[in-house]
Amino acid sequence: MSTLTASASQTLLLRYHHTRARTEAICKPLEPEDTVVQPMVDVSPPKWHMAHTSWFFETLILLPHLSGYKVFHPQYAYLFNSYYNSLGSRVLRHQRSTITRPPLRDIYAYRQHVDEHIHKLLQQTPEEELVKFLPILELGLQHEQQHQELLITDIKYILGTNPLLPTYKEQPAGTINSDATPGKFLEVPGGHYTIGYTGEGFCFDNEQGVHEVQIDDFEIMNRLVTNREFLEFMEDGGYKDFRHWLDEGFALVNQNQLEAPLYWMKQDDEWHRFTMHGLQKVNLNDPVCHISFYEADAYANWAGKRLLSEFEWEAASQVYPPQEGNFVETDLLEPSAANPAIEGVQQLFGDLWEWTYSAYHPYPGYSKALGAVGEYNGKFMINQMVLRGGSCATPESHIRTTYRNFFHPDKRWQYSGIRLASRR
Amino acid sequence: MSTLTASASQTLLLRYHHTRARTEAICKPLEPEDTVVQPMVDVSPPKWHMAHTSWFFETLILLPHLSGYKVFHPQYAYLFNSYYNSLGSRVLRHQRSTITRPPLRDIYAYRQHVDEHIHKLLQQTPEEELVKFLPILELGLQHEQQHQELLITDIKYILGTNPLLPTYKEQPAGTINSDATPGKFLEVPGGHYTIGYTGEGFCFDNEQGVHEVQIDDFEIMNRLVTNREFLEFMEDGGYKDFRHWLDEGFALVNQNQLEAPLYWMKQDDEWHRFTMHGLQKVNLNDPVCHISFYEADAYANWAGKRLLSEFEWEAASQVYPPQEGNFVETDLLEPSAANPAIEGVQQLFGDLWEWTYSAYHPYPGYSKALGAVGEYNGKFMINQMVLRGGSCATPESHIRTTYRNFFHPDKRWQYSGIRLASRR
Amino acid sequence: MSTLTASASQTLLLRYHHTRARTEAICKPLEPEDTVVQPMVDVSPPKWHMAHTSWFFETLILLPHLSGYKVFHPQYAYLFNSYYNSLGSRVLRHQRSTITRPPLRDIYAYRQHVDEHIHKLLQQTPEEELVKFLPILELGLQHEQQHQELLITDIKYILGTNPLLPTYKEQPAGTINSDATPGKFLEVPGGHYTIGYTGEGFCFDNEQGVHEVQIDDFEIMNRLVTNREFLEFMEDGGYKDFRHWLDEGFALVNQNQLEAPLYWMKQDDEWHRFTMHGLQKVNLNDPVCHISFYEADAYANWAGKRLLSEFEWEAASQVYPPQEGNFVETDLLEPSAANPAIEGVQQLFGDLWEWTYSAYHPYPGYSKALGAVGEYNGKFMINQMVLRGGSCATPESHIRTTYRNFFHPDKRWQYSGIRLASRR
Amino acid sequence: MSTLTASASQTLLLRYHHTRARTEAICKPLEPEDTVVQPMVDVSPPKWHMAHTSWFFETLILLPHLSGYKVFHPQYAYLFNSYYNSLGSRVLRHQRSTITRPPLRDIYAYRQHVDEHIHKLLQQTPEEELVKFLPILELGLQHEQQHQELLITDIKYILGTNPLLPTYKEQPAGTINSDATPGKFLEVPGGHYTIGYTGEGFCFDNEQGVHEVQIDDFEIMNRLVTNREFLEFMEDGGYKDFRHWLDEGFALVNQNQLEAPLYWMKQDDEWHRFTMHGLQKVNLNDPVCHISFYEADAYANWAGKRLLSEFEWEAASQVYPPQEGNFVETDLLEPSAANPAIEGVQQLFGDLWEWTYSAYHPYPGYSKALGAVGEYNGKFMINQMVLRGGSCATPESHIRTTYRNFFHPDKRWQYSGIRLASRR
Repeated sequence: MSTLTASASQTLLLRYHHTRARTEAICKPLEPEDTVVQPMVDVSPPKWHMAHTSWFFETLILLPHLSGYKVFHPQYAYLFNSYYNSLGSRVLRHQRSTITRPPLRDIYAYRQHVDEHIHKLLQQTPEEELVKFLPILELGLQHEQQHQELLITDIKYILGTNPLLPTYKEQPAGTINSDATPGKFLEVPGGHYTIGYTGEGFCFDNEQGVHEVQIDDFEIMNRLVTNREFLEFMEDGGYKDFRHWLDEGFALVNQNQLEAPLYWMKQDDEWHRFTMHGLQKVNLNDPVCHISFYEADAYANWAGKRLLSEFEWEAASQVYPPQEGNFVETDLLEPSAANPAIEGVQQLFGDLWEWTYSAYHPYPGYSKALGAVGEYNGKFMINQMVLRGGSCATPESHIRTTYRNFFHPDKRWQYSGIRLASRR
Repeated sequence: MSTLTASASQTLLLRYHHTRARTEAICKPLEPEDTVVQPMVDVSPPKWHMAHTSWFFETLILLPHLSGYKVFHPQYAYLFNSYYNSLGSRVLRHQRSTITRPPLRDIYAYRQHVDEHIHKLLQQTPEEELVKFLPILELGLQHEQQHQELLITDIKYILGTNPLLPTYKEQPAGTINSDATPGKFLEVPGGHYTIGYTGEGFCFDNEQGVHEVQIDDFEIMNRLVTNREFLEFMEDGGYKDFRHWLDEGFALVNQNQLEAPLYWMKQDDEWHRFTMHGLQKVNLNDPVCHISFYEADAYANWAGKRLLSEFEWEAASQVYPPQEGNFVETDLLEPSAANPAIEGVQQLFGDLWEWTYSAYHPYPGYSKALGAVGEYNGKFMINQMVLRGGSCATPESHIRTTYRNFFHPDKRWQYSGIRLASRR
Repeated sequence: MSTLTASASQTLLLRYHHTRARTEAICKPLEPEDTVVQPMVDVSPPKWHMAHTSWFFETLILLPHLSGYKVFHPQYAYLFNSYYNSLGSRVLRHQRSTITRPPLRDIYAYRQHVDEHIHKLLQQTPEEELVKFLPILELGLQHEQQHQELLITDIKYILGTNPLLPTYKEQPAGTINSDATPGKFLEVPGGHYTIGYTGEGFCFDNEQGVHEVQIDDFEIMNRLVTNREFLEFMEDGGYKDFRHWLDEGFALVNQNQLEAPLYWMKQDDEWHRFTMHGLQKVNLNDPVCHISFYEADAYANWAGKRLLSEFEWEAASQVYPPQEGNFVETDLLEPSAANPAIEGVQQLFGDLWEWTYSAYHPYPGYSKALGAVGEYNGKFMINQMVLRGGSCATPESHIRTTYRNFFHPDKRWQYSGIRLASRR
Repeated sequence: MSTLTASASQTLLLRYHHTRARTEAICKPLEPEDTVVQPMVDVSPPKWHMAHTSWFFETLILLPHLSGYKVFHPQYAYLFNSYYNSLGSRVLRHQRSTITRPPLRDIYAYRQHVDEHIHKLLQQTPEEELVKFLPILELGLQHEQQHQELLITDIKYILGTNPLLPTYKEQPAGTINSDATPGKFLEVPGGHYTIGYTGEGFCFDNEQGVHEVQIDDFEIMNRLVTNREFLEFMEDGGYKDFRHWLDEGFALVNQNQLEAPLYWMKQDDEWHRFTMHGLQKVNLNDPVCHISFYEADAYANWAGKRLLSEFEWEAASQVYPPQEGNFVETDLLEPSAANPAIEGVQQLFGDLWEWTYSAYHPYPGYSKALGAVGEYNGKFMINQMVLRGGSCATPESHIRTTYRNFFHPDKRWQYSGIRLASRR
């Protein structure tokens, strides 16, 4: 992980409490029953997320660094370890909904217990000794932010598979952009680009291994692909025509009889989609969302374009540095239409994670950390594709242009969308 | 269904409210999260049981018989229909945990709404017209009692698969019987026996079709098989020796690596079992519980005995009429040891459902009722085995000696046990 | 098994050689490749059947009774044991197609080796000592006849799933009966009937346990249900209407999108069926064939009738003793239409096995034999339904009115059909 | 595909006949039954390979280019199309063993029919017009060579899952190398390397898109990892220690209880492996073979090394150009030990395909051809890893240093092995 220079414990404490409070704010609109179910194996119960992030701090900071610390409950490590073999046996991933107890209030008590002890630890540790656990504390905060995004996507899936399609929260006023932004392709000059994180702040191990990559000239689309454009693909029989698809993608389409993005459904012959604000008519100018890599690639083929590699994406972000984005802080929790007033490349940050045609593999010189932290990223570097740029569910402070997100190419429940490059 | 002579609406109302209150009492110790999960497809979420039983009254009584009645919620029929094709589409059985909303309080409001309108209907209907819906109201009450038993078994499964093994409620004082009752075999003389319900009260359609059956002399064990006896089978390698087993049963044992009844686990080299009162040491005099038909049959073979047919069971109940039993009213919710002071055949009623070696098939002359009620029993008459006598989770007023319960031979989550006959 | 009085070894030898030769005649039209595949788990490769029946004689007769006998090949017991746990480990049932070697010619050599040694054994055994292995030799012959029928059904399945739909052999001339026989219901008087085998010859253990059964008056259809009648059911939407079906049957219909019996396919808008003589137009007067118990029961419900119990079938066979039938000796290998000239009940023997609404359970007093023979029947007495009467693939000398065949209710690849009873 | 300059038809014809004869030579040792089974979905029946390669020539050359050509059999296109959606419907991949007919002799007749017509076509086409179908004829030959390798690996799997473990052919005399070659790491200097095919001859479309890649200094092991080395990993608990494994790989190991490479089995406490020459003791100096990418990667991690990227492999092959290798022409059909007398990097060509840590993705500028040929490679570019260098089952004339083979990371039935790089 990164080598953080020690900041004042007070600043850190503020950040800690802010991050932790944010997690609880996300869960506030939920009923207790919403917090325990697991409608598919990729989704974790919200209650589990809340406990797991606390277990992370308890296990990796309080136990080794706060002298005399007693765990809140002797079995919580078994219940709330996610995938760290180094840290003992655990509830199997697909059985997380068996954890109906402890009830929600106990999880809140657990969070409070951990928070109070982190507070105490930070208060009592002399500034010069903070450095001993600062990197792992930083990792804990980043980790909690990742789970905040997962909480949002998992909650959306939980509500979206409920036959009542309940609303998570009302749509903020004035957040619908109704004008179309014409698509165009802007040049990214070829050459050598430095890939990977070179700054001073935090980054994940998978962004390290900075290296030069040679890239040819290419063109990048100025915005994300819209629902209007994707509907053209659908209406042109895109889901039925094998020529656009990777073979495994087409098999999946047929097996699951896919004919639209996740959360789309037809009502009275009109396409609607389930959103965090309930079922809505599909807004044609919004970016198309909740699609798999296979759908992104098939769309690109149909359009006579292609997806970017993750290196091209990172190069483009150096040429067209993203300034701002529709992140979780807008409280919209859905992607929003591009802004026709902007000339250059937009939506690189926020709105939707952009599928790249790059496998999630180690950068040159990558090596796993020792111990449990070494299980954080490295062991997942197979069969997954890199996504870039963050989404409307990502905390703004969490993203970087070098940030590598990754999912299996069939996954659709994340906020994922399409950025096109022009074929050479 | 039976032809009930109309009783006073007031009596009926009392029974209605008592039955409905009992359902809610069963759910009282639960956390909201306990009420929504479905750890295996056979188990339904407790919240679903509470709503489904209300939907039954709403759909089959209030809608047809209470003029001007409006359904509580237009989508509840979709959410809470169980398996009645006649009554429209519904949430698939294995997806009942997607119903996180409506929250528990809405389900209680639904119950109250239905109760108030049944109350109103009963109050306003002249005695002479009650007969129009009395049979279906009676069926609704019997139906609710069946779900009360399922609630208890499903709650036990939900708590028993939770890694914390939470207690449902404390064990009532003075309910442990520590003396052994020696097993012996008592004679049931052969001859013609009348099978099926011949009384005046309610019975299910599957008990009708009264007919004569010729039975040979046989001997019946005076009590249920105990944990002590079953442990001997286990320690003799019973689960490893194919000779005792039906082929499909032995395949199941190997596939799932079974070596003990459901809910048994070894701690510190001693067998314990999860009970409604938490994890306890196995009481050797208690009847062995939560076993499949395959286990019951394998035990019987090992012991050189056999299971009864359902006709033999019913004949035995005529020769040794059961007087009382450990039903749900004892509030023990677990089987209890036989009473050494009793001379004859005991435990025919209550404690545990007794697997018979009889397939659940129609009696001669059986015919399904028209409409939705016709789906109540008949369509399940394949691949299931009959169990007799009720259990510690059965309401006393629900059982009869002619009562036919039925489950697939691999099921273990019901309160099921073993009654032996001596081989001819 | 039965207690056979010792017959002359010469007679026995003739019967032995005739039976063995018949097995090879069945396999004669096959290509070597046909003899090794296993298109579904229920089907065994023909080569395996030929070897397995030889292994049965080798293991249960030659090894114990022919002094100095050496097995043909030390691994054949592993390859060709079917399901006898007593006789050691074996190739798993679903992996029988891995046995590409030994090649077909080795299997023929194996058969010859076994035959020569049985010959030798019979020749050298004094008449008075034959009795030591006569019962098991008899069982071996009956066993081989059972496999002859399975060979035919398995070969039909192998050819019928080959996209080329190859013909097994040409249809014998003059075997098509084109006249319809009107269906009618004939009375079987109620009373006490003796069930089970009471004769002197061979029977299986599952026919023993002779007992009295009381049966009510009922009516039996004079012939099997025809394709014409079944087509009416199909055209009336029979496969789409849940009201006719057992719940598990209807689930199967939907899951596998069933809309006709096995081997039926539409060509140029006309129903054809694959037969041992190639693809043919459906002959409307022929009995409907290759249907599951679920389809038989659904048809009966649709027709306002019901299936017989196995006891009713056996009683009917006492009232209307079957004289002859379309057995394997006609060489037709398909069911043929009823004969309009016959007044009484016909087709009880031959043509098609008739599904009964009786579970395959032990008769009173049933007990398994010791050793491997005890695994022959008893361990399959769960989840299967009894079929009666033999089929066009059954050797005539193999059947009896007390013969109990059994298959799971979803199986369709056997020659199975429908006999109706009139509802009381 | 490549743009071949037209060579004399006579030369081409010789090559055609040689290639076709080689396929038949591979199948010669088989029994007909060996040629029809499909013990796992990845394996195709040898008969199918022989027919499919003929169908390729028939469909893509004879039908479009030989005027008046009639297909050998109207249904063979349905039977023997592999995965070309453009060329119509077909037998599903996992159902290829249903094709017991046509029998083997018909397939040979089919091959002869196609060969005669290709002969005729080549004879009658003027040299200047050959160019019209030369590229596709070349592709057909390369395609047949690929199936020759698959034939060998599939035959090995078919024989290796047969409980008798039959020998394919005797081991050629003098092919065992018993001396160990010490492992060492040789330098490959960093810099810019040209990746992709730049020659004049044939290459696949996936090698095109020549581009520059910048590579850092690294070291490559002089030979493949040996059985001795892999046994050390095994004996050190390598298969039990999650720290060495990618998460999905470790899950697979546990699920399938893997503890050794494919085809390894212990006999009398000593490791043996099934080879094309029967079961043999593991030769410690031979390269470890039939391992998945997961096993290769886990071994590398355990050894403190890593796998190469496909670019590093190609760069290494420029620095240490492979001269010769143990290809199919040695007739050994198993990998052989390295030669201690060789100083530099050996075994880059032949012996075993070397797993790289590179996903099989398109090179920059890749675009699929129009029509059926466009389905040859492109649609498989997801979830697979690149292997380099050919194996003992590869025709020597088929391989190039730019050749990209690809399989899913869990596959073990190919001749796959491990080449290490030293970690930076």
